[in-house]
Amino acid sequence: MFKKTLLAVSLAATSLSSASAFAVEQVDLLIKNATVLTMDQKKNVFEHGLVAVKDNKIVAVTDGSDLKEYEASQTIDADGDIVMPGLINTHTHVSMTVFRSMADDVPDRLHRYIFPLESKLVSRDMVRIGAQLGNVEMVKGGVTTYADMYYFEDEVAKTVDKIGMRAVLGETVIKFPVADAANADEGIQYAVNFIESYKDHPRITPAFAPHAPYTNTTETLKKITELSKKYDVPVLIHLAESERENQVIAERSGGKSPVEYMADIGALTPNLVGAHVINVSDSDIALLKQHDVGVAHNMSANIKSAKGVSPALKMFDDGLRIGLGTDGPMSGNTISTIDEFNQVAKVHKLVNKDRAAMPPVKVIEMATIGAARALHMEDKIGSLEPGKLADIIVVDTKAPNMVPVYNPYSALVYSAYATNVKHTIVDGKVLMQDRQLLTADEKAIRDEALKFADTVRKTVIESGEVVQ
Amino acid sequence: MFKKTLLAVSLAATSLSSASAFAVEQVDLLIKNATVLTMDQKKNVFEHGLVAVKDNKIVAVTDGSDLKEYEASQTIDADGDIVMPGLINTHTHVSMTVFRSMADDVPDRLHRYIFPLESKLVSRDMVRIGAQLGNVEMVKGGVTTYADMYYFEDEVAKTVDKIGMRAVLGETVIKFPVADAANADEGIQYAVNFIESYKDHPRITPAFAPHAPYTNTTETLKKITELSKKYDVPVLIHLAESERENQVIAERSGGKSPVEYMADIGALTPNLVGAHVINVSDSDIALLKQHDVGVAHNMSANIKSAKGVSPALKMFDDGLRIGLGTDGPMSGNTISTIDEFNQVAKVHKLVNKDRAAMPPVKVIEMATIGAARALHMEDKIGSLEPGKLADIIVVDTKAPNMVPVYNPYSALVYSAYATNVKHTIVDGKVLMQDRQLLTADEKAIRDEALKFADTVRKTVIESGEVVQ
Ligand SMILES: [Zn+2]
Ligand SMILES: [Zn+2]
Repeated sequence: MFKKTLLAVSLAATSLSSASAFAVEQVDLLIKNATVLTMDQKKNVFEHGLVAVKDNKIVAVTDGSDLKEYEASQTIDADGDIVMPGLINTHTHVSMTVFRSMADDVPDRLHRYIFPLESKLVSRDMVRIGAQLGNVEMVKGGVTTYADMYYFEDEVAKTVDKIGMRAVLGETVIKFPVADAANADEGIQYAVNFIESYKDHPRITPAFAPHAPYTNTTETLKKITELSKKYDVPVLIHLAESERENQVIAERSGGKSPVEYMADIGALTPNLVGAHVINVSDSDIALLKQHDVGVAHNMSANIKSAKGVSPALKMFDDGLRIGLGTDGPMSGNTISTIDEFNQVAKVHKLVNKDRAAMPPVKVIEMATIGAARALHMEDKIGSLEPGKLADIIVVDTKAPNMVPVYNPYSALVYSAYATNVKHTIVDGKVLMQDRQLLTADEKAIRDEALKFADTVRKTVIESGEVVQ
Repeated sequence: MFKKTLLAVSLAATSLSSASAFAVEQVDLLIKNATVLTMDQKKNVFEHGLVAVKDNKIVAVTDGSDLKEYEASQTIDADGDIVMPGLINTHTHVSMTVFRSMADDVPDRLHRYIFPLESKLVSRDMVRIGAQLGNVEMVKGGVTTYADMYYFEDEVAKTVDKIGMRAVLGETVIKFPVADAANADEGIQYAVNFIESYKDHPRITPAFAPHAPYTNTTETLKKITELSKKYDVPVLIHLAESERENQVIAERSGGKSPVEYMADIGALTPNLVGAHVINVSDSDIALLKQHDVGVAHNMSANIKSAKGVSPALKMFDDGLRIGLGTDGPMSGNTISTIDEFNQVAKVHKLVNKDRAAMPPVKVIEMATIGAARALHMEDKIGSLEPGKLADIIVVDTKAPNMVPVYNPYSALVYSAYATNVKHTIVDGKVLMQDRQLLTADEKAIRDEALKFADTVRKTVIESGEVVQ
């Protein structure tokens, strides 16, 4: 089932008679005339640079002066456009696209609304249909890797495999009965089966996803920690997100914060990726750093629900592993991390009362190599460097909102739309070219989602259960 | 010079032999199968509605059951897409597009950076080139009317006339020497000449634009107030925006707030539109209401510069005339008001600690009829109602970020990009159809802007004056 999708390579024969003074390197894909944001250690930017790809890896990232040294099966002339690492969405629930724009502002929405809605409507079909739609949205928005937490993650995995994206897919474990498990133990077993099936997939990293500390028992959280070590897989969790969580955990632990509690039970490990991480003290932050925990910062969703602003800037400056996430489409509501850029920059300026507090380059770091660090994947993705996997996007700089570009980081953060992404490349393969998806049928996927939305309307809206 | 641009009308002859039982009304443009957000008094929404346009006016907005009663020269099948009033940007400096993405986060930017930059680079050419680019961006983003404050506004006017938009154009008056006036009196004279030339234009409302209370003398502000009454034209001003303004005005007036000072000197009138209005007390807000002043709320620019959050929600709820603006492209940085929606909704939730604080319908009101009220144009634009001017946009609901639409207000506010606008109609004329501009040459305009950006680079960046 794991067809590794490689670029169809039909190498042009190197002309032996050419009087070239240098060795010509055959590559599969060459992107030239690019404003290359490498996001490497030195934040090198090449104004007329190139990126060369062989198989699924980057083999060269240069200032373009060596352009003649490459001969490529496929060449993209970026014509000055921005070429950068594919975006990494560190936290979403991709399948929930099918519920987007429903009852956005009801109070206590998760418990009074979303959980009951899900108990009626989550199914294998729903998960597949929603994931397909979300994948399309993300590929078109330049997201090349995402971390997901939901049910029936094997269905999500099939859609990711098919469209050609990269993903960390966490199977949810929660103490209530849910669509794919009657209790937490069944959830763990579902996750273990999923992990065993997918652990060798070249683009999919299977994971455990305990919903949150307060929606699982200590025993479950400990069990998952042990299993994550055994299988060496990530653990994705909502952490330090809500008042309710603070209360439940304080009661359970004799007044501890969620982060302190997790440290106490041994659940803070380098496998852990905590989403939100809003309600944390300086000592909580120190604990997260000490245990090398990853953090997903979901600004847009957090302020939409008036939960407050995570001290993400402090965590970033303190050297924690932190990257941008969108949260799910009932929370965000879009799932391309470009949509976070503007808000992340501006809201941190606002709360820090300092217009220089969050410069664009930090936002881009949190969307690329920072996000890779949050997922402990910085050795493979997140920057354009030889040896890394070829996850690359090209961003149009000729759209009227992007003209002119004096500073590419500023242009991306303050001006870019997800729709300014022109080409998306994952694992060396072009998934979107000139805004056209090459590996998915966008219209068929949309039609299936719209049909499911009609079912949703009939099930919960027309009955009056949902007041819009 | 004021060619009134009307739809080319080639009426199909009504078939006299048709056995129709009802009278058929000939219209110029018919939009059918639409999710119509009227933004009328009752906020009527028609799920399969129609909008009919004759000449430059709306003649019918219905639930679609009377579709057969119209025969149109041009029909747009919206296929379920959202049809709504054109967006109204209550505050920008359109020509500054050519400076976008430059030195975004330097401290005290206006005085240390922007004013000196402008003294070097503002010219008739720069104003025209920047305005052309900004007009393209706004038409493509669904903005049909905007209020502008800058220099050489007659150049902006020519571009607005040509592309077919609607605008309130305010010629700047400021006490420093600027590109088109050596002092405030020359600025006033420039404005008077501009107003006299354009006062009868069908789509352009010329106006005075004193930069701010603290950058003009009391005498200048009083003179402009009198002239605005004489000519019955708007006065656009930056108001209650910065700490510096508070200080200067407090010193000048013996401790008054900018709003109190403006009331005292008789400058608060129904002609006034104040931009930003951040630093206002409850009594300032009452003064603004009492004098029927319009307010431009520029969330995105205000938080980017860490100036704080205007009490825009309170002003809206108190019944003030308030609408969304983007501020200029060095501040915003994009100038389509759709880009404000998400931030306006979410940041007001954040500061009010209430996820229900700013529901999407209020945001859409502030972008349409509320913005029309802010400009005192609510009798002409801002809603889809018979008798109003035909400024209409169609928003694509099939883009992956927009699927599905359970609630059109939510979808617009939390999900839409400016690029989801499919068609833009102003004064009954289609300016953009299927994202293609019909009344401007986008590429030529972009090329001219890029060429000017090269001049900017040579003038201030390569010399090292600007540190990016
Ligand atoms: Zn989540
Ligand atoms: Zn302004």
